[in-house]
Amino acid sequence: MSATLLRPVPDIQPGDPLAVATALAERLAHTAVQRDRDGGHAAQEREWIRESGLLTLSIPAEFGGQGASWPVVYQAIRILARADSALAHVFGFHHLQLAGIRLYGSAQQQRHLLTATVEQGLFWGNALNPLDQRTTALRGADGFTLNGVKSFSSGSVGSDWLTVSAWDAAAGEALIGVVPTAQPGVRVQADWDAFGQKQTDSGNVHFDQVPLPARYVLQAPGQAPTAQATLRSQVAQLIMANLYLGIASGAFDAARAYTREQSRPWFASGVDAASDDPFIQHRYGELWLLLRPAQVLADHAAHELDRAFNKGALLTARERGEVAVAVAEAKALSHRAGIEISSQMFELTGARATSAKFGYDRFWRNVRVHTLHDPIDYKLRDLGRYVLDGSVPEPTAYS
Amino acid sequence: MSATLLRPVPDIQPGDPLAVATALAERLAHTAVQRDRDGGHAAQEREWIRESGLLTLSIPAEFGGQGASWPVVYQAIRILARADSALAHVFGFHHLQLAGIRLYGSAQQQRHLLTATVEQGLFWGNALNPLDQRTTALRGADGFTLNGVKSFSSGSVGSDWLTVSAWDAAAGEALIGVVPTAQPGVRVQADWDAFGQKQTDSGNVHFDQVPLPARYVLQAPGQAPTAQATLRSQVAQLIMANLYLGIASGAFDAARAYTREQSRPWFASGVDAASDDPFIQHRYGELWLLLRPAQVLADHAAHELDRAFNKGALLTARERGEVAVAVAEAKALSHRAGIEISSQMFELTGARATSAKFGYDRFWRNVRVHTLHDPIDYKLRDLGRYVLDGSVPEPTAYS
Amino acid sequence: MSATLLRPVPDIQPGDPLAVATALAERLAHTAVQRDRDGGHAAQEREWIRESGLLTLSIPAEFGGQGASWPVVYQAIRILARADSALAHVFGFHHLQLAGIRLYGSAQQQRHLLTATVEQGLFWGNALNPLDQRTTALRGADGFTLNGVKSFSSGSVGSDWLTVSAWDAAAGEALIGVVPTAQPGVRVQADWDAFGQKQTDSGNVHFDQVPLPARYVLQAPGQAPTAQATLRSQVAQLIMANLYLGIASGAFDAARAYTREQSRPWFASGVDAASDDPFIQHRYGELWLLLRPAQVLADHAAHELDRAFNKGALLTARERGEVAVAVAEAKALSHRAGIEISSQMFELTGARATSAKFGYDRFWRNVRVHTLHDPIDYKLRDLGRYVLDGSVPEPTAYS
Amino acid sequence: MSATLLRPVPDIQPGDPLAVATALAERLAHTAVQRDRDGGHAAQEREWIRESGLLTLSIPAEFGGQGASWPVVYQAIRILARADSALAHVFGFHHLQLAGIRLYGSAQQQRHLLTATVEQGLFWGNALNPLDQRTTALRGADGFTLNGVKSFSSGSVGSDWLTVSAWDAAAGEALIGVVPTAQPGVRVQADWDAFGQKQTDSGNVHFDQVPLPARYVLQAPGQAPTAQATLRSQVAQLIMANLYLGIASGAFDAARAYTREQSRPWFASGVDAASDDPFIQHRYGELWLLLRPAQVLADHAAHELDRAFNKGALLTARERGEVAVAVAEAKALSHRAGIEISSQMFELTGARATSAKFGYDRFWRNVRVHTLHDPIDYKLRDLGRYVLDGSVPEPTAYS
Repeated sequence: MSATLLRPVPDIQPGDPLAVATALAERLAHTAVQRDRDGGHAAQEREWIRESGLLTLSIPAEFGGQGASWPVVYQAIRILARADSALAHVFGFHHLQLAGIRLYGSAQQQRHLLTATVEQGLFWGNALNPLDQRTTALRGADGFTLNGVKSFSSGSVGSDWLTVSAWDAAAGEALIGVVPTAQPGVRVQADWDAFGQKQTDSGNVHFDQVPLPARYVLQAPGQAPTAQATLRSQVAQLIMANLYLGIASGAFDAARAYTREQSRPWFASGVDAASDDPFIQHRYGELWLLLRPAQVLADHAAHELDRAFNKGALLTARERGEVAVAVAEAKALSHRAGIEISSQMFELTGARATSAKFGYDRFWRNVRVHTLHDPIDYKLRDLGRYVLDGSVPEPTAYS
Repeated sequence: MSATLLRPVPDIQPGDPLAVATALAERLAHTAVQRDRDGGHAAQEREWIRESGLLTLSIPAEFGGQGASWPVVYQAIRILARADSALAHVFGFHHLQLAGIRLYGSAQQQRHLLTATVEQGLFWGNALNPLDQRTTALRGADGFTLNGVKSFSSGSVGSDWLTVSAWDAAAGEALIGVVPTAQPGVRVQADWDAFGQKQTDSGNVHFDQVPLPARYVLQAPGQAPTAQATLRSQVAQLIMANLYLGIASGAFDAARAYTREQSRPWFASGVDAASDDPFIQHRYGELWLLLRPAQVLADHAAHELDRAFNKGALLTARERGEVAVAVAEAKALSHRAGIEISSQMFELTGARATSAKFGYDRFWRNVRVHTLHDPIDYKLRDLGRYVLDGSVPEPTAYS
Repeated sequence: MSATLLRPVPDIQPGDPLAVATALAERLAHTAVQRDRDGGHAAQEREWIRESGLLTLSIPAEFGGQGASWPVVYQAIRILARADSALAHVFGFHHLQLAGIRLYGSAQQQRHLLTATVEQGLFWGNALNPLDQRTTALRGADGFTLNGVKSFSSGSVGSDWLTVSAWDAAAGEALIGVVPTAQPGVRVQADWDAFGQKQTDSGNVHFDQVPLPARYVLQAPGQAPTAQATLRSQVAQLIMANLYLGIASGAFDAARAYTREQSRPWFASGVDAASDDPFIQHRYGELWLLLRPAQVLADHAAHELDRAFNKGALLTARERGEVAVAVAEAKALSHRAGIEISSQMFELTGARATSAKFGYDRFWRNVRVHTLHDPIDYKLRDLGRYVLDGSVPEPTAYS
Repeated sequence: MSATLLRPVPDIQPGDPLAVATALAERLAHTAVQRDRDGGHAAQEREWIRESGLLTLSIPAEFGGQGASWPVVYQAIRILARADSALAHVFGFHHLQLAGIRLYGSAQQQRHLLTATVEQGLFWGNALNPLDQRTTALRGADGFTLNGVKSFSSGSVGSDWLTVSAWDAAAGEALIGVVPTAQPGVRVQADWDAFGQKQTDSGNVHFDQVPLPARYVLQAPGQAPTAQATLRSQVAQLIMANLYLGIASGAFDAARAYTREQSRPWFASGVDAASDDPFIQHRYGELWLLLRPAQVLADHAAHELDRAFNKGALLTARERGEVAVAVAEAKALSHRAGIEISSQMFELTGARATSAKFGYDRFWRNVRVHTLHDPIDYKLRDLGRYVLDGSVPEPTAYS
């Protein structure tokens, strides 16, 4: 039956990347509760991800990658997030950086960086936070020099390369480039101390006179972003949605197993097993009606995104906007499914399920922290505007 | 943009049955408010439906019908329900009776009855209410004699033929058969006086010594229902879901047009147009997140049902049960979308939209009456049981 | 037990005005369904109200009235609204006009108008809609001349006197005055055609060269409104809340009686009576948790309002603001209780309760129409501002 | 303004026990985040509670206590819970044990035990869990001998005396008695490891041949519980409600301070401060409408309970049942206010508020763990039964 409940992943074959992801998720699950408690950098587990080969999942076959479609990449993220949503985030953001290279980079940059990623097993991190403009780029002979700091840099700790944005004061615009994390002058300071998503390897990245040669500039300052380029924020938003969904699904499955195997029937219920309690059955039905639509619409959005991604430079602003709407639908539904299921699951299990040994509170803590990436109320507003007059969301780093 | 919002119906071509349904819906819309007020039998409008040719929509091509798939039939129901959910119900229940013939009837019965339906333009009505067991069948030489009454018989007023169930006291079981409405001894008494869905032509059908020859018995008493046969209740449940969806969609569109064209901005909002009010935009986003998943899951359920229908006698109980789960998901979501949108739409339009001339309250009245067909709480319970232990709903007339 | 459920009205004694209101409500209830269907002016029923003596309920004893506190007046409105929310509105707005006289009028005006109301059994109507500024006041020798039209004038049809606002273009400000409805030049045009609250006797009041002598000007143009004067909008808002509550309570009681006496248990429930169905019990519990807090907070607000009203000119802006917060709490909760209970009541009764003979849809239609008086989202915003920084709502005609 | 928001505690005077509680809460607040992290026994903080004198709060003046009414005791619990809901629970359960002595104990037992509590500054713990029947009582010459274990014993660690229930197999009934925690044979094993309410000093209490002399038996086996005696579970249930409320209120205040002082406006909001964002204001309004009714109804229930408590042996089953209804209303509303506010507060503060240094997740963890004491769905069912037919909840340890 669990295959049925996982209807979005019905046909995993051995050798299939989703089978690889599933096996990896099981491996991560064994220590997930302990690592949630401890926090810090999951060096060993990141190696397992690297060894699994999944770091090349989204890289086109022409560069030696697996050439998976976005729906497959998102399924992999979701599968990992059911077991460990922090490492699933690191994994997802690795592919986000790769997407950036494909969306912004020249053909040469793509070949160089993506091939290197395959050959050297590179792990990418993020230093792009657009709301933090403290990192500056000073134009020089060949490229720029970076100085300053960039906060909320997910996956930067332990990364091999970083995508970075920096403010070119002369141009009055930001650029986007790539930098090896081991480059002298780059210092990653692990400072993430949130109560959830603890092992996302997020930090402040400090730049001290770091050269950014022209060949590593993906998007020069003042270059008007194309519909294609702005698709990156949709790739990111849909990673969020799939992380929420993975958490929701992990919480749902944990609750279900607990109700069936461990919960005691309430003395006033008149039934012999908690899973025969009509109120418990009803509430499972309610939560399922949160989870199921979110899954279906996330899958739908992944297909729409994939189609748009493959249009490349031919993608129109309108088409990009329609993708943003599909992604917003999926993200808002996943947000709610995650928050509600991870909190209400305890009504379905009872007091004993709050023992720290199960670590079931991590689902709520993880999804609560992660769903604050950008406010849901503005997603709802965007959707409202769309249905009112057909206007699509303005492309930003969050929409 | 409306095409976008109607994403489930993206590709209507002229000559396409959905184009026919759309044109028919527009025709019905002109008088829908007035007919909602007056109630009674919509003789003229039923003729329009007959003239549209859509009565043969679900009939296989081998019997002269259009051979449309269930997804297309359900789309047609939904399109009609946006304009007039009472006549959409009559239309949907006509196809439910035809589905019954295909699910229960012998090859000969199917050929005879479906061909006749095409050739004579027959309109079918329902006299099958399984909760009313007052109609009895007395076994005779060739078949049975029917006596008694059957309540809640949708579409019986003005029908050409009826599907009927009756209780065979000797066998202690019910049978299912078909009867021409004009048959002597059959009397249809229009008694429907609900505050919504007024023109569903529902009534009490009285039987007074009505002969039911063996060739018109679709399912004999005591015949164990097959998985195939019990699919009929899923056809019916998904008609319900699509009616709710059509109403929800009609209400949503009416509200949207009103907000854009007629609503005045609230004096404290600080904006020049109601559609710029952030709270109004936000609430449209919320309602859209009720409507959209219901649409997507109803489409999904239609495909599942179609596949199961086409398996015929090979359909297993498990497969039938999986269809029932998909239909239950769609029905519960559509129920809520319908009730919430038809009630909350007024928060989005303001007081002037309550003028009787618009007739906007009919959306709530229609969906409120129709969603009481069977209790949503038992659908949720069924879904809960399914996700808890994988058990599918027990086949009944409602699940 | 019903006394228990009516805990807010525990101690009605014979002769008590609430006993009078209860008897009047019972009388109105007999024809409420029929009059809801017919709409129009309820001349006979308004006479019953007049005969009951309750038109003097809020008038201080010194002017010959009953000197009831606001909590008692609001209870009377709520009791009437359980049976007939349209006439309860007419009744409530009569007392709103009297409140206006007490809040704006001079000592002499109060004595004259309130005494006349007692002695002549006057029924007051409203022509004050502040959002409609089409009625003008031209200053003359003794007072003003009124011209123009005023829409949404509740209770104007069949009234004896009207409170009216008019725009003094010279002063660039509005005035408030009183006018006999029979005054030549005043014409009341019944134009209310909403799908609910049909007999509120609302209309357009036309003024054609109507003299408004100085002694009938309650608030001159340009007179800065005091905290006391702006309390009028709180009197009005709390009338709204109590009307919603009366409807909610009427719907709840109707549902409860139906569930107990007429509903059939669902075949899959395994119980012998609908009232033993765990899902039905649970839902009643849920709806009760909407109704009960609304009742308690409406009572609380009535006491706060009464205290503030009695402070008269000593009332501070802050105190007035705290009353507005208490009223906003009550109004928002009552709004939701009304909408939810009147819609969900049918889940608790089943399909047969939708028969037009019961007229149960009137609860939703009445509360749906009435709750659009001003948008709930701005009440929530006002409450949010208050709890965020302690700022009280800005005095307007709606807050 | 905070005084306003705390309207239920408007009039704290110096020397007032609520002023003492407020000062104590401030003291506890300083280390609450750290102690939440560490868990374990809060020996020092329990001494502070003892030193505050509040352990005698509920003890009648005739025995040397402060003779506070239940509304005051519950306010004190709520005030402490805003800062530290685990110690507030220990404090509340101390008074629950004292309530048990007053409800079950003879006049002599009351004088002896309550006077000793005042004179010796005793701290009471619980070993009464009625769902765990593993502790047995064997009747001997003078009283009983206790053997076995009792789980979920809140406040047992570090207590001076315990209230205990034990199963008398001979009588086939349970007894209730009191035992000094230091009595040889009593062993308290701290085993509580939930993810919230960490310092509730809950544990397994082991009894090994522990004598329970007759004078320490509060309720002998087989003694039919009176309405008065069964009031104990209502005292307990209302402690729960006030703990939830204190947590809800603490979370609300923390969010409010954060929004005002630290949140950054969302870049797409167009406002300069987060507290000017209309969506944030609106959501604060929504959460307030969860908190405020819960507060008001908890206060109401406290008054009803106080009145019932003071009736002593004269209390009827019906009156006891009406108290149970009032308490159930308060508990269900507080449950929801707690869960929703502690989870949604983060939508109002943003991502930076998830830093572990603030410890804001403890509100959700605490209320999530505590609200599983008994299922809310059965409270709703009890309320539904009451409003349907007036039947009051059956007296149990939870209703």
